[in-house]
Amino acid sequence: MASFPVLLVLLFYTLTGKAIAELTPNFFHQSLTHYLKNSKPNISYETQFFPQLLDHFTFNPQSYKIFYQKYLINKNYWDHGGPIFVYTGNEGNIDWFAANTGFMLDIAPKFRALLVFIEHRFYGESLPFGKDSYKSAETLGYLNSQQALADFAVLIRSLKQNLSSEASPVVVFGGSYGGMLAAWFRLKYPHVAIGAVASSAPILQFDEIIPWTSFYDAVSQDYKDASLNCYEVIKGSWAELQLLYAQRDGLATISGIFRTCKNLQTRYSARDWLWKAFVYTAMANYPTESNFVKQLPAYPVAKMCEIIDGFPPKATKLNRVLAAANLYYNYTGNEKCFDLENGTDTHGLHGWDWQVCTEMVMPLSTSNESMFPAITFEIEELGKFCMNKYGVMPRPHWITTEFGGYRIEQVLKKFGSNIIFSNGMQDPWSRGGVLKNISSNIVAIVTEKGAHHVDFRFAKKDDPDWLVEQRGQEVEIIQRWINDYYADF
Amino acid sequence: MASFPVLLVLLFYTLTGKAIAELTPNFFHQSLTHYLKNSKPNISYETQFFPQLLDHFTFNPQSYKIFYQKYLINKNYWDHGGPIFVYTGNEGNIDWFAANTGFMLDIAPKFRALLVFIEHRFYGESLPFGKDSYKSAETLGYLNSQQALADFAVLIRSLKQNLSSEASPVVVFGGSYGGMLAAWFRLKYPHVAIGAVASSAPILQFDEIIPWTSFYDAVSQDYKDASLNCYEVIKGSWAELQLLYAQRDGLATISGIFRTCKNLQTRYSARDWLWKAFVYTAMANYPTESNFVKQLPAYPVAKMCEIIDGFPPKATKLNRVLAAANLYYNYTGNEKCFDLENGTDTHGLHGWDWQVCTEMVMPLSTSNESMFPAITFEIEELGKFCMNKYGVMPRPHWITTEFGGYRIEQVLKKFGSNIIFSNGMQDPWSRGGVLKNISSNIVAIVTEKGAHHVDFRFAKKDDPDWLVEQRGQEVEIIQRWINDYYADF
Repeated sequence: MASFPVLLVLLFYTLTGKAIAELTPNFFHQSLTHYLKNSKPNISYETQFFPQLLDHFTFNPQSYKIFYQKYLINKNYWDHGGPIFVYTGNEGNIDWFAANTGFMLDIAPKFRALLVFIEHRFYGESLPFGKDSYKSAETLGYLNSQQALADFAVLIRSLKQNLSSEASPVVVFGGSYGGMLAAWFRLKYPHVAIGAVASSAPILQFDEIIPWTSFYDAVSQDYKDASLNCYEVIKGSWAELQLLYAQRDGLATISGIFRTCKNLQTRYSARDWLWKAFVYTAMANYPTESNFVKQLPAYPVAKMCEIIDGFPPKATKLNRVLAAANLYYNYTGNEKCFDLENGTDTHGLHGWDWQVCTEMVMPLSTSNESMFPAITFEIEELGKFCMNKYGVMPRPHWITTEFGGYRIEQVLKKFGSNIIFSNGMQDPWSRGGVLKNISSNIVAIVTEKGAHHVDFRFAKKDDPDWLVEQRGQEVEIIQRWINDYYADF
Repeated sequence: MASFPVLLVLLFYTLTGKAIAELTPNFFHQSLTHYLKNSKPNISYETQFFPQLLDHFTFNPQSYKIFYQKYLINKNYWDHGGPIFVYTGNEGNIDWFAANTGFMLDIAPKFRALLVFIEHRFYGESLPFGKDSYKSAETLGYLNSQQALADFAVLIRSLKQNLSSEASPVVVFGGSYGGMLAAWFRLKYPHVAIGAVASSAPILQFDEIIPWTSFYDAVSQDYKDASLNCYEVIKGSWAELQLLYAQRDGLATISGIFRTCKNLQTRYSARDWLWKAFVYTAMANYPTESNFVKQLPAYPVAKMCEIIDGFPPKATKLNRVLAAANLYYNYTGNEKCFDLENGTDTHGLHGWDWQVCTEMVMPLSTSNESMFPAITFEIEELGKFCMNKYGVMPRPHWITTEFGGYRIEQVLKKFGSNIIFSNGMQDPWSRGGVLKNISSNIVAIVTEKGAHHVDFRFAKKDDPDWLVEQRGQEVEIIQRWINDYYADF
């Protein structure tokens, strides 16, 4: 194990590079194309484009540039003048978020609500500089959360004017990064939105608000809860993999064991590939079969552990773990081989990479409780990576300066209202969420068995009771916001 | 009066030009040099400079530029760890605001508070591009309220860290535009400031929230309240002036009557000079002698009206009005002649001009009730002026999009807390202020006899009871905020 420290450093580099982007909540995007190909939801949204201002916060001549921001609109259930439900789009194509936020469609008839899904600037078709949008820091500079929030405010105001429905109450919804945006939108633009439903929004995953180890500890806890043996097998498997790496022709051996389509070229791609399978499966540990990140069975963490535990006693840890990863990467059984090293750059992750390199600095490291190899987070290392990739440095304290987070209970106890923070404890991002009620109208809804914004998924007939109840509770609260709004009129 | 419509149009042009800047709350700056020369307050603030980021809301390479932001600090009364009182600087040199905000110094010993006055970017010595700061829209683009608020947040956070006093409660104070900033700061950065005292902050003077005529109606009301005859004399004087203008050698005649140092060159400078005297005297209608805009006696509006009313019956209206203006421009009696056409550009008003041409669009027009000549506000005309002067167009709906204002009672009734909006009804800007309590902890303090942020001035032994009471009320509320903060700890 003499080379282990080297491994850690290299692993760290990997994490500051593409892995930081992939292991923060942008991961949805990579499965987008796949998802849309495999399941075309029959939802009729009208696609519109809004002339949006490039830079809301400076007045240089170039800030006046207009780009076309995509949004989807569904008026099928709307009584003119009634509520407007807006999804504050996150780091991907808005069609996909619309297709995966069935909750809004499910409840629209009850509220006679207009539905609007606004695409986040620099994602999907909302590219301020067209195909040059990702060209350099000069263009990417305008990609950030504050500009996105201002986009939402400007678009919503204009939309209401155009619809001659300026008195309509607006409720914003968002999941994951979109959930952060929804919560922040209510806090910064209370005059535009009367309330926000922020599902799985890790707004506290910044700076030193929560322990940096909480994310991977939470993933590990999911597996430990499913089976202590399972957790220990995974925890022990990295050393077996490391021994293979250390062998002569290690990469070739690993390529064979991992059934890669091409011989592996880089040292840690196999390990990262396994790592991701465990993380994403924890996030998507839904109570019913799903096709969000990948196609997966109900409660896939338990399924993975059943596989690991079901091997004969003498089986290696690595073989067990590989079989578990196969559930994640190949639930359908259609994959003949796996491409571990390519493809990630082609799924449009660039945007989130940039955000991680500027404001979305969410430090993640591991503790001894973690089933993953030890990693540390060093802002200097992230800085080097970002300077090298984009020529800019991260601003690691900016999010907490702009949006707060420290002592959030005390700060918001007597400030703000009408926010639901919902989190499922299976989701490792829950640890960065608001898990306790802050006041009578800034509330936390926490489900032990919930995963990454499970409440926003389409209702299914086999949904468990706790999920049905959770959604009912959210509907009740939203109804109260709307009633209060009209009562104040 | 055939030429009157032409006059109106020309007047309008005048107002969109320098007069718009001068008649919006930036007017302090022009008297700054004068003030400091004439009365050096013996206040010991330490001057510091903070390395501030040029652009908080984009991440282009140029946004990372650092400039040095000036702030003043007074630790004389501070118990380490105790409250920090921050003045959110407005459109001028911060030394002058410190010298004119004696209220904070007066109450600092009671609270054992640290005092900090932060200079607004692009004013005083806080010039991001040094002497090139006002060169063009390229540099001026970074001058706006959102960037200023973010500056305050970043600076306060850093200061607290450097002082090892991160748990100190911060209360922000501001008057006029600085008062808007203080109120907005509490709304946007509740995690940084526990409360805001916003004195004479016309946050509703935007868009179509309040009638555009309210400002000049309020000025007129001040004079009408002092004496109906006075009001009517002023109202009738413009026609007399107009007749002079229409004469051959009209400008020379007017130059003589107005005792100008040089012969007048432009048509409406005499009228605008009178106009300003009435507006600024209304704003500075303080209950004691003051030297804020100009040196003035106590209740100067009444004094002006005494002068106007005291003339023999056959005196012309213009002569009466000129004598009244003499009180404003020459209370000390030292002026031998008046320079009506020069000097305004040399007093550093450029900054506010720019803000008016971008975001600070506060429409002002006159009603039939007004004692001023009829003027209208046309955004197109302002746009032409701004495009010509800076090459950019105003964004007239931006402030209400970013900060709200419409239906503010309903919006903030259940959102936000700990803001005092104080207004004196003598001050025409009061009409754009919050004049009614919004909730139990967003309160309006209104004094009938108060003028422009009179509560922020140094206490004087001859202050009237209502002013002493007002300040006492403010102190009590601030004390409650601080007590609540510590109780929540």
